[in-house]
Amino acid sequence: MYQSRLLSTTWREAPADAEAVSHQLMLRAGLIRQLAAGIYTYMPLGRRVLRKVEHIIREEMDRMGAQELYMPAMQPAELWKESGRFFDYGPELIRFQDRHNREFALGPTHEEVITTLVRAEINSYRRLPLTLYQIQTKYRDERRPRYGLLRGREFLMKDAYSFDIDGDGLDRSYWQMHEAYKRIFSRCGIRFRAVEADAGTIGGDGGTHEFMALADIGEDTIAACTHCDYAANLEKAEPGPSKDKAKGAPDDAPALEKVHTPGIRTIDELAAFLQIGPKECIKTLVLKVDQQLAAVVLRGDHELNVLKVKHYLQANEVTLAEPEEVLRATGVPVGFLGPVNQSLPLLIDRTAADMVTAVAGANESDYHYRHVRLWLDIADHSVGDFRNVTEGEHCSRCAEGTLTFHRGIEVGHVFKLGTRYSEKLGARFLNASGQEQSFVMGCYGIGVSRILSAVVEQHHDETGIIWPMSIAPYQVHLIPISIKNEHQMGAAHDLYTRLQSMGIEALLDDRDERPGVKFKDADLIGIPIRIVIGKDAEQGMVEYTERRRLQKESQRIEEAVERIRQTITT
Amino acid sequence: MYQSRLLSTTWREAPADAEAVSHQLMLRAGLIRQLAAGIYTYMPLGRRVLRKVEHIIREEMDRMGAQELYMPAMQPAELWKESGRFFDYGPELIRFQDRHNREFALGPTHEEVITTLVRAEINSYRRLPLTLYQIQTKYRDERRPRYGLLRGREFLMKDAYSFDIDGDGLDRSYWQMHEAYKRIFSRCGIRFRAVEADAGTIGGDGGTHEFMALADIGEDTIAACTHCDYAANLEKAEPGPSKDKAKGAPDDAPALEKVHTPGIRTIDELAAFLQIGPKECIKTLVLKVDQQLAAVVLRGDHELNVLKVKHYLQANEVTLAEPEEVLRATGVPVGFLGPVNQSLPLLIDRTAADMVTAVAGANESDYHYRHVRLWLDIADHSVGDFRNVTEGEHCSRCAEGTLTFHRGIEVGHVFKLGTRYSEKLGARFLNASGQEQSFVMGCYGIGVSRILSAVVEQHHDETGIIWPMSIAPYQVHLIPISIKNEHQMGAAHDLYTRLQSMGIEALLDDRDERPGVKFKDADLIGIPIRIVIGKDAEQGMVEYTERRRLQKESQRIEEAVERIRQTITT
Repeated sequence: MYQSRLLSTTWREAPADAEAVSHQLMLRAGLIRQLAAGIYTYMPLGRRVLRKVEHIIREEMDRMGAQELYMPAMQPAELWKESGRFFDYGPELIRFQDRHNREFALGPTHEEVITTLVRAEINSYRRLPLTLYQIQTKYRDERRPRYGLLRGREFLMKDAYSFDIDGDGLDRSYWQMHEAYKRIFSRCGIRFRAVEADAGTIGGDGGTHEFMALADIGEDTIAACTHCDYAANLEKAEPGPSKDKAKGAPDDAPALEKVHTPGIRTIDELAAFLQIGPKECIKTLVLKVDQQLAAVVLRGDHELNVLKVKHYLQANEVTLAEPEEVLRATGVPVGFLGPVNQSLPLLIDRTAADMVTAVAGANESDYHYRHVRLWLDIADHSVGDFRNVTEGEHCSRCAEGTLTFHRGIEVGHVFKLGTRYSEKLGARFLNASGQEQSFVMGCYGIGVSRILSAVVEQHHDETGIIWPMSIAPYQVHLIPISIKNEHQMGAAHDLYTRLQSMGIEALLDDRDERPGVKFKDADLIGIPIRIVIGKDAEQGMVEYTERRRLQKESQRIEEAVERIRQTITT
Repeated sequence: MYQSRLLSTTWREAPADAEAVSHQLMLRAGLIRQLAAGIYTYMPLGRRVLRKVEHIIREEMDRMGAQELYMPAMQPAELWKESGRFFDYGPELIRFQDRHNREFALGPTHEEVITTLVRAEINSYRRLPLTLYQIQTKYRDERRPRYGLLRGREFLMKDAYSFDIDGDGLDRSYWQMHEAYKRIFSRCGIRFRAVEADAGTIGGDGGTHEFMALADIGEDTIAACTHCDYAANLEKAEPGPSKDKAKGAPDDAPALEKVHTPGIRTIDELAAFLQIGPKECIKTLVLKVDQQLAAVVLRGDHELNVLKVKHYLQANEVTLAEPEEVLRATGVPVGFLGPVNQSLPLLIDRTAADMVTAVAGANESDYHYRHVRLWLDIADHSVGDFRNVTEGEHCSRCAEGTLTFHRGIEVGHVFKLGTRYSEKLGARFLNASGQEQSFVMGCYGIGVSRILSAVVEQHHDETGIIWPMSIAPYQVHLIPISIKNEHQMGAAHDLYTRLQSMGIEALLDDRDERPGVKFKDADLIGIPIRIVIGKDAEQGMVEYTERRRLQKESQRIEEAVERIRQTITT
């Protein structure tokens, strides 16, 4: 491609509302243009990257035996009413009526369509397992679209759905897809972790992973082991075993001691007042669990994980109780609550339960107890995991690693649906004994357009994007210093033709611009290999630069071509 | 692909509402499934065909230097209001509001989006010409969706837009695209004609062609020359020169003669009554042209072409006048109108004007004239082309051919837009003299999903589809007669693996079905080459069949492989 003809305009500055680096760079490099909030046009360079990502995804899907189909974006509302999601989905679901006043939704996902399709097509276990996928535009009316392609309203997704006879089959399909996803993200040059995520009320048995591209802009926190490959979302991550196991502590510990702590309400104040660490205190929080109150006890330095409490109690809704509610129910003002003689049902976090002794509220205004022994002194209580893990604590899966925290962008998601949709939509097949049975399903997504943002977040420097070779819009950038110089242009055209004949994609900067402008644009666009054709072209010499390192090396044209070939094919 | 795993169910019968053969066959072969009226899922076999068509289109677009981009389907209503089409487009434009009550349209086409995009990106003639394209889903809320993919509400299109400095540039871009379209349709195996079409009030100078796939189901009539490549839509087709040129007729023709023709109102009645041919009569029709009345004179056997009258008079609206209006304005009942002493403005069709003499209404109830000489006796009138061409008449472009009529499906359209959109949307660039100038645009469409229907309309027999090799879902169908026979299955797998290693796409029918069922399905699905592996497999023999001819030939496996290779690569 000749750059003078390419629809690509670079910008010196990104607009002020582009917060994410990837959003800024993709606008500045002319890869995307905004049409409306969260709605983008992919310009020729961006489209090329997108197509390469699509190609990698197709190869890996086909390799695992998934079949491609293509479903409509216009979906009859009745389908969504049948599954119960038409109202549940809320304002993110775009709805409209056709000319005959029939209601439609613009698909944000395709569980309803695919389940009813398979319901009509497959009636025997003999035709299972089956995995179907599509690469298709999705619609989600985000309340606050932002970060460019990271949170858009119209975006490209690969969505896949597996249909199996039973849980074991689903397991196989799920892990096959899991492996395919690992290959896809690796091939796109993404540093990622497959992270255990919370399956909500649907999945159970840990049947969901999120594939998180590691990046500071990421909206999710991931806890990952330094040693093994355990990684989980903060809401799901499990703490390792405590170091101080209280059970072995001496029986002759000092007895409870009430301390006057006037106006001391927070853990920090308490620790300072008593000149101890927050780790030696415990805090007691009151939660509203489906209209009932319950108290949760945590070590002073730990954070509550509401989701874990919710799952433990199999509750529908768990929130922090208001101070007035707490006072009304217990007679104790917030800040002086404690586990000793607590009238509310008591949940003790496992790490707190393992403390030998602790300082805790005395359930009396302006008083705390020293020497509380949760494992000895408290009668009725449940022990469980009710807190977020902390950075640096032991991994729950291996003996050697500790947890580190990362920020991540979700680029993929695999999910065991089970029979949630097949039961609601009556999608059944005849099993080997001739009985009707609901399909056991999995669903799997990749944010195709999101991958572009994730890659740019991970691969850039202060001057611009650094594309991985596998998805670069072009592989080689040819830059003659002066287009008026015949030798330079001759050599550039020659190189262009040769690379083309080798199946290598080159962009030739034939624009009548100063070299500084050309280099700045080249840095910004980020094509992996750059060949500068300057005054030495007459002597058959060019400058070879990798975008990654920006180190210039003078080379004979022949050698440069060979080096390009080797770099691309390996 | 193993057919037992393929999501493909064949139907014995098509549903009653599937009128078109292509619609019936595509449903029966399991290529598409309907989700709602005019909205289809492409099943794996259909998706494969679609992808091959997309691939051919991309190759030809890239070859002509067009650049691919990807624009959103969600388009802000403001854009459509700026161009004036938000209200003009009517109920076919799908509209909805987002969560903030902003109005959007689902794009049926992208002139607005691309014109404002290029307006923002390109400011100098140096960066022109520019041709951009996308392959993207379009939405059009058809009043009566039908014929499967031929008239859908959600469909795949390739749309392209060219931007030039001037009319000459547009001309070059237009004809380049025209050539690319010819290659695309040829490569897809479509028999088509590039047909001159009516440019409406936009284009002028014949700047639009429709690419029509010839098929009986087609909704448009095409007149095409038997000798040269002239072809035009009926509404646009121009008649050739008349045989009988009146101008050379004798001056001593008989004088006007009034004939009593009681109750004779139609041409057929008149011809029968006078025992002459309809060709010897003329008919006079009264039209309402933007609220004024005018009379048009045609030869008795010809049909009025309203569009031609409309263009000739540069009118906004032309309709047939009601009989009462005619009587009120002329005092003459319909049936007895004529050109002699006609008070209304008079338009005479060229072929009528060339008649030596004719029979015509006398502008008096129950009377006609014989020996009307339009070229001599009528004072004020205009002569022009106001009729449809008829089958068998002379071609207007060559001396030798005559016109034949065909039905056609529009699969592509190229159109010179000129500055219609760039002016409305203020899209300008600086020309070589530094002056502002509007982009001169062309727009070009291909109905990607429609191509599937057109191909099936043209390539089928009574048992099913016959795919052209270039877009067949698979190239070879391997059918072992009995999957329980080890020799047969061994040979089949062996062949499958060998073809795969040669890059040839094979579908292996490993289903436990009777041979009759397998053959019926194979006929229906229509893969071009079929290899049946039966009991002779033990002797290294298979049956080679082309779907096109359904003639079985026994062949050695080696020879069959070689023949497949040759058939596919040539």
